[in-house]
Formats: sequence, structure tokens, C-alpha cells
Amino acid sequence: MEDVVIRTIEKAELHDPILVEGLPGVGNVGKLAADYLKDQLPAKPLATIYSKFFPPQVYVSEEGIIRLVSNDLFYWKSPDSAARDLLVLGGDYQGISPEGQYEITERVLDYCHDLGVREVFTLAGFAQGRVVEEPRVLGAATNAARVEAMRAFGVVFSRNDPGGGLIGASGLFLGLGRMFGMEGVCLMGETSGYFVDPRSAEAVLRVLARILNLKLDLAALQAKAHEIDRIAQKIHEVEARSPESSAPSSERPREDLGYIG
Amino acid sequence: MEDVVIRTIEKAELHDPILVEGLPGVGNVGKLAADYLKDQLPAKPLATIYSKFFPPQVYVSEEGIIRLVSNDLFYWKSPDSAARDLLVLGGDYQGISPEGQYEITERVLDYCHDLGVREVFTLAGFAQGRVVEEPRVLGAATNAARVEAMRAFGVVFSRNDPGGGLIGASGLFLGLGRMFGMEGVCLMGETSGYFVDPRSAEAVLRVLARILNLKLDLAALQAKAHEIDRIAQKIHEVEARSPESSAPSSERPREDLGYIG
Amino acid sequence: MEDVVIRTIEKAELHDPILVEGLPGVGNVGKLAADYLKDQLPAKPLATIYSKFFPPQVYVSEEGIIRLVSNDLFYWKSPDSAARDLLVLGGDYQGISPEGQYEITERVLDYCHDLGVREVFTLAGFAQGRVVEEPRVLGAATNAARVEAMRAFGVVFSRNDPGGGLIGASGLFLGLGRMFGMEGVCLMGETSGYFVDPRSAEAVLRVLARILNLKLDLAALQAKAHEIDRIAQKIHEVEARSPESSAPSSERPREDLGYIG
Amino acid sequence: MEDVVIRTIEKAELHDPILVEGLPGVGNVGKLAADYLKDQLPAKPLATIYSKFFPPQVYVSEEGIIRLVSNDLFYWKSPDSAARDLLVLGGDYQGISPEGQYEITERVLDYCHDLGVREVFTLAGFAQGRVVEEPRVLGAATNAARVEAMRAFGVVFSRNDPGGGLIGASGLFLGLGRMFGMEGVCLMGETSGYFVDPRSAEAVLRVLARILNLKLDLAALQAKAHEIDRIAQKIHEVEARSPESSAPSSERPREDLGYIG
Repeated sequence: MEDVVIRTIEKAELHDPILVEGLPGVGNVGKLAADYLKDQLPAKPLATIYSKFFPPQVYVSEEGIIRLVSNDLFYWKSPDSAARDLLVLGGDYQGISPEGQYEITERVLDYCHDLGVREVFTLAGFAQGRVVEEPRVLGAATNAARVEAMRAFGVVFSRNDPGGGLIGASGLFLGLGRMFGMEGVCLMGETSGYFVDPRSAEAVLRVLARILNLKLDLAALQAKAHEIDRIAQKIHEVEARSPESSAPSSERPREDLGYIG
Repeated sequence: MEDVVIRTIEKAELHDPILVEGLPGVGNVGKLAADYLKDQLPAKPLATIYSKFFPPQVYVSEEGIIRLVSNDLFYWKSPDSAARDLLVLGGDYQGISPEGQYEITERVLDYCHDLGVREVFTLAGFAQGRVVEEPRVLGAATNAARVEAMRAFGVVFSRNDPGGGLIGASGLFLGLGRMFGMEGVCLMGETSGYFVDPRSAEAVLRVLARILNLKLDLAALQAKAHEIDRIAQKIHEVEARSPESSAPSSERPREDLGYIG
Repeated sequence: MEDVVIRTIEKAELHDPILVEGLPGVGNVGKLAADYLKDQLPAKPLATIYSKFFPPQVYVSEEGIIRLVSNDLFYWKSPDSAARDLLVLGGDYQGISPEGQYEITERVLDYCHDLGVREVFTLAGFAQGRVVEEPRVLGAATNAARVEAMRAFGVVFSRNDPGGGLIGASGLFLGLGRMFGMEGVCLMGETSGYFVDPRSAEAVLRVLARILNLKLDLAALQAKAHEIDRIAQKIHEVEARSPESSAPSSERPREDLGYIG
Repeated sequence: MEDVVIRTIEKAELHDPILVEGLPGVGNVGKLAADYLKDQLPAKPLATIYSKFFPPQVYVSEEGIIRLVSNDLFYWKSPDSAARDLLVLGGDYQGISPEGQYEITERVLDYCHDLGVREVFTLAGFAQGRVVEEPRVLGAATNAARVEAMRAFGVVFSRNDPGGGLIGASGLFLGLGRMFGMEGVCLMGETSGYFVDPRSAEAVLRVLARILNLKLDLAALQAKAHEIDRIAQKIHEVEARSPESSAPSSERPREDLGYIG
């Protein structure tokens, strides 16, 4: 079979579209943000991406219906016909091998290029290894003008972070995107790296909404963040009562909080 | 060499054939069931599937004759010329890499599509992590009508199982099958996950026989199940006499019972 | 680059040639036997096989000259013009991935088929997990007639060995060879599996010489075997003097005896 | 996408150019030497090499600008128009799989062959497993004449080193280079194998400069080496004060000295 199969669901004419990517990763920040964005706009299904570089796996819905793992491209036409349209890329997995990452990213970029995409925003989490109360949104970009532009929206460019670079789809969509004449920005929400982190996703979306001049209702994401806080607080209290515990709190709550990673 | 090589042994004209897949996996339930079905019908060899995604291995028969590891497709023409014919897929291995799983499944589906297959049943085990006295048969399907139809045959559709989806051939034959216009059902026999489990295979075949309106003599499979029970019972007795043993019984008997996995 | 590159060194016209394969493996028995056979005949270089499925490695000779790792095909023209010629395949490595094993074997078989090869002998070690004083030569073959023929030369066909089949080149050259219309035999010298075992290689060559009606001087191989015996004996004596040692003798001498495996 | 993508930055006419390769590896000796050479000449960017056999990673500069990981080819035109020009190959990574190593090396060699390269020098570290005060430069070459020629420049050819051959790009560029009609030499600076080792890189460059008749100012590399010495000395002193420490000093300072490997 082809390494990557892209099935178009609906042919859409898009106006100077911007691609927003958010796949599973650190704290699942990128995926949470992209999925929430897609639901809020709301964006409509445009194409499904299958690949032998994903796990050989199907999901089963609560109704018992099977679905092959995939990445999924949604589109949103701005009500303002002069404004730019959006493409949102989400999905179940990133490619599970380095070569798979390259292949999938390159094919999706090629497909998006044909749809007119010349600008990309990638959403990700940035693991700090400690609890982050007020997550900042760190940035990296394909050129200096964009770095400056992003600073105006509150994006933080740190001399040292991310020191080791970005690994995975959020970096690759920008790095390979340049070969397609695309420019772009990676927005990274600070997160502990231990939980799924809707608060960090919220911070990322808040910045993105300002940049793209979108009105997003973030209430449901905030509710999710509070629910996580509540659970984390409970765990904290239990541990406070058993101070002899040697395991750091960060290693406990994974199961409760549905860590995806 | 080609990634997947399919050698046709006999050209068969089949009437609206149904593909039944059962390869090695959890409790070896799918393979036990498919092999037993093939012997009971009896089905005849149609094609052999070799692949560089299988291990580089040959088996040696008791007579000293070598055979390259393979998957094998058998066919059965119903004595009732109005009834549908069957294809049964069994074999030594599933593809040993994710990409191999996709490649092999896609090629076999393509081959079966050319033979007229539009409907697929995949047989598998579902690991419960505990001894299962009366295995139920869980299901997953490609559409809602099939879910309903299967319930009438006693197949259980659980809201939560299988939570993480299905990994491997039994899921992939359905997930990729949809790209070939095929619909289908996965039948999963509950099993502990610790032994080869003929009792679970029997439960699966009993349901399948009802669905496909086949008459199958399951006596030999029951005998095998009783033999496994007898061994498990012995192990249980030995352990009952040494209650200080801390290892759970489920972890012991693997070697005795020929776990394949 | 091509997955497998075969460079012909000399074009040779061969009379109904037989391929003898011996690559690194259990006890290095196959490689020892094939290399010794090649030197004794002596056989001349015919072709060099490079592949990206070998390690990315060069060897450096004592003179400081670099050589890319390879497999190597040698030919021997029988002085009796009515007799059959030989091809001997040796080398530094087997393919280091399952797919690589298939690819390399298939390409070499294709090349040998063009040279007229229709019969293959593969040489290997069979690990018994214990010291073997008088190694038998076990066999496996592509058809029943060959099994019978081999018995007459003292080859042992055991109902249970090798139970799990053969993994690697020695099995694959026969298993894939059948797709090229080749028949053949695998000769497996019993060996502990812990050392490089020239004695087992000698046993294999002794049988092979009878089968192929070759005169081979095995003195140098015997000398090597005696040297290994002498070292093993010393280790045994040291251990006899320190009976409290808990490590089994078989686990010690690896380094001394240059295990390659 | 193509396995390896080579983007030409500037078309250069080169006079009988020599390729000098230095990629990350043992003690990072080869990379340190090639990068320093490139800066000192100075050499200009000629081409960028991307590959799906590199990690799916981008680096972020201190200014927040993203750059996809790559290998990079630089050229230097000798001011003496009768003298030979140079190509210098450096980069972030070697291919991360054996197949990737072969593919990338083969494609870069092909590209360099088109530029007229017929001679290759590869730079590497040779791990001695102990502190090396005065690193020698060991050699390996593609033919005997080159071995002799190198001895005159102080390159050491040892009967036993490197016993296991060379693994990775420095060996492969010579081993595969021969298929492109290229001859060459590997220069290996002795190093402990525990640190990034600028002193070893300096030793290699000193020899290379003599061979290629280049004038190189090595002061900055020496300064780097002294800085490493100073840190190592401090660690040594700390350990001398805590003699009960059981960990060998070589296992400690990795983090401080920025080991890359």
C-alpha cells in the first residue's frame, strides 16, 4: 500500500488558508488545543490520513463501531469572506518511527500546499518537569519577522528553551514546511510533562485566538482544567497526610488523570 | 523481492465468499478457531502468502521437510449452490512490524477483493487478565446494522471493551477492509491471556457457526479444552498445597500449556 | 542505493553448480565450514555482495587497508569435467533485520539461479545447550527423497529437532530457494552454542565431503578444535579447584574462545 | 519524500576537490575537526542534506529561529589556482539506522562524485577507554600506497587497532567511496571516549593540515582543550578528596563536559 493514504472527504475552496497542527505529544497540549479549536469553530471534515507508520490498530466506539487510527484534517471558512480560512490537523498518533514522521508530515504538507497553505501554526507542550501554575506560551518561528510579530501577542522567546530543539510533528511541520515555501510558528504551552494539561492548552489557544483574530469560548476547556486541578489537589492532600511516602507526587496521578504523553 | 508474495495454488470460482481470518494472537484464540474451522469444513488450499515481514524462518516437519513460514488461504464451496462460499485465512505469524502488518493485510485484502470478498469476520481473543470460566464472545463491527445483527447471535457489545481498541490483524482486516468496500465483524473470545485457550476458540466458533449457518462438530476442540483444564487443575492443586507461594497461579503454567501469545 | 549490490569479479561458466552456504551463526559452525571448504578446494572469488542490510562497517586489515563488510561468493571448477562445480557463499554477517535477511537471500538466490544453481546445501550449528563430545550432523531437507538420501550419509533426522524451526540464512536459502526451483539440504552440526566450534564444523564438512564426493584435508580444522579443547580443559581445571563457584562453566570461557555467535 | 534530499545552495566549479568528512561520533572528534576546519579556511555553504534517516527534529537558535537537522557541505577554493579545492562535510547527526547510514553516505558520495571528488579524508575519534595525554592519530586507508604516504605524515598504522573495524560514516565514506572510484584515508584521533575531545581534534587537524598543505590557526581549538582540561582537573581534585568513591572518574564528568558521543 502507499506509505500514506489521504482520503478527501469534501473538496473545499479555501481562501489563503492557515494550517493549525495539534497532535498527541507532551501533556497532550497540542492535541487538546487543536481538537478544541476544531469543535469550537466548528470546522468540518476535509480529509482522513491513514498510514502504515501509525500503529496497526482500530478504535471501537461505545456503540461497537470500528475506526482505523488516523490523522484528520478539518476546514473552517471564515464568515468574513475577506478573512483567511483555517485548516486544523488533529489525530490519534504521530508517526511511530522517525522515517514515518518525515513521510507523513511531508505528504500532509504536500496536500495542504495544494489547498493553498503557505502559513503554519503548530501547537505543542513544553515539559518543564515541575508543576506550572501559570503556563507561559513559548515560541519558535521560521524567520525573525515572525519572532517579532509573536512577541507582540505575548509569546515568549527564550534564549535557552527549547535547548535540545523540538522533536516530532510540531517541529517537523515547520522544518519541512519551508521546503514547500511555508513559513510558520510553533506555540508551546508550558506544562509539567506529567499530566494531560488542558490549562496549558487553554493558554496556547488564548494566544492563537489573538493572533488569528478568532473568538473562542474557552469555558469547557477551563472546566476540564479545574477538574484536573481538583483531582491533583486530592492526591496532594492524601500525600500530605502520609509524609513518609517517598514517591514524588508527580509519579502518582498519571492513571487518574489520563496521561497520554 | 516483493514485500508480500501471494502464490495461488488453485484457481477457484467462489460464490459471494466471506473471509474468515484467524491468526496467532491473544490466547491463540483466533488461530485455533480458524485452523479448526478449516479442518472441519474441510477447506482446501487456495493460496500461500510469504513476506519479508514475517520472521526469516522455516519450520521442519517430523519427517525432516522444510517449510517457509507463511499465511495460508483456504476455500470452501458450500454444498448448497445458493449459499455463500468461505475463505479461511490462517498462518504461522502476523507481520512482525507495524508496517508489515499494514502491508500484508492490504495485499491479502486486495487479493481477496479480486476473489469477490465483500464481507469479513475476524476471530481473536480478548485478554481479561483473570481466569474465565464461561467465555463470552465480544464484538466490534464496521457499522451499526451489523452490531444489531450480531447481538441476535449472542455477541456482546460492551460500552467499555475493548477500551484501547484492537491491535493487530483482527482489527486491521476490518479497518483496512473498508477501503476495499468490505464490511465485517470481529468476534473476540474472552480468555485469561495466560494460556492457549481452546475453550474460548470453541465459544467463538459456536457463535460463528450460528451466524454462517454452518454445522461444525466441536468435539475435538472440547477435548483439547478439557485437557488444558486438567493440567490447570493439577497446577492448582500443587499450589493449594504450598499456600505460602506468592506467585499468582496465572503466572506459572505457561510452559506447561504451550502459551503462544 | 540498491538494497543489495552484487559485484561480479569474474564471469565463470559453471557445470550444474551446487551452492554451499555458510554464514556466521550458532557456534559459527556454518561460517567455519564454508570458509575452510573454500580454502581447501581452493575456490576462487566470483562475486562480492554489499548491502545496506549489513552493519555500516568496514574492517581494517593488519596492513591498514579498509574493506567494506560483505558476503562473498567463490566458485570451484571440478577437475573432472563431467562432475558438478561448486559455489561457496561465506561472509562477515547475515542481514541484520528480518527484512534484510529476506532481501539479501532472495537476491543472492536470483544471482545463483542465473549461474545455473538448482541445488543448495546450507551449513549451520545446532545449539544443544550442553557440551557435545561427538557432534552428530542433523538434517532438514526440501523433500522426502533428499531426507532418505542424506540418511545414507549418516545425517540424523530427528522427529523433534529442530523443534522451533530454523531461523536465519540457513533456513531461508532453502525456504526461498524453492521459489527459484531449487531443492536442498541443511546440515547442522551439534554444538554447545557457547563457543566457536571447529569440531562441529569438521563433522559437517566430513559429511558434506562424502555427499559431494570431495577429498578434503581436515587437519587444520582438527588442530583448531584441539586448541579449543585445550583451553576449555584449562578452564575446567581452574573451576574444579574452586568448587564454590556458582557460575556454570559454560558461561565463562566465551571471551577466551572468541565466541562470535 | 525522497530518502535523502540534497539542496544545492551555490553551484561551484571546483578544481580536483578533496572531500573531508567529520560527523558526530566518538568524542565528537570528527565533527569538532571538520567544523573548525570549515570556519578557519573559511569554507562557504554549498549544499544542505536532509533525510528521513535523521531524527524528526528541528533546532531553535538563540533568536528563536527554527532549523531542520541536516548535514552540510561547504567548499573552499584554494587561493593558489593550481592547488586542489576542498569540500568539508559536517552536520548534526549521522543516519540513525544502519540502512540510513548507507543511504545517506551513498547519496552524498554520488553528489560529490558529480562535483569531481576522487579522494576522501574522513575524521574520527578512536576510543581508548582511558585518558590519553598525547593523542596519536591512527589511520586506515583504501590502498597500500596511501598507507605508506600517511606514515610519512606521522599517522600511526597499528596491526591491531581498530580491531573490530570502523562503524559509521567515517568507515562507510571510504568503503562505499570505492564504488565511486574514490580512494581515501581515515584519520582517527585517540581519545578516552568519555568526553568531547578538542585536543584529539587538534591532533587530527594538525596532521591533516600537513597532508593538505594548509595553514591553520589552531589556537581557538587549543583554548577549548585547555578549558576541558581545567574542568577535568577540578573533578579529579574533588574525587581525590573523597577516595572512598567507588565510581570511576570517567563515569562522572560527562554532563559537565557536554558529552555528545
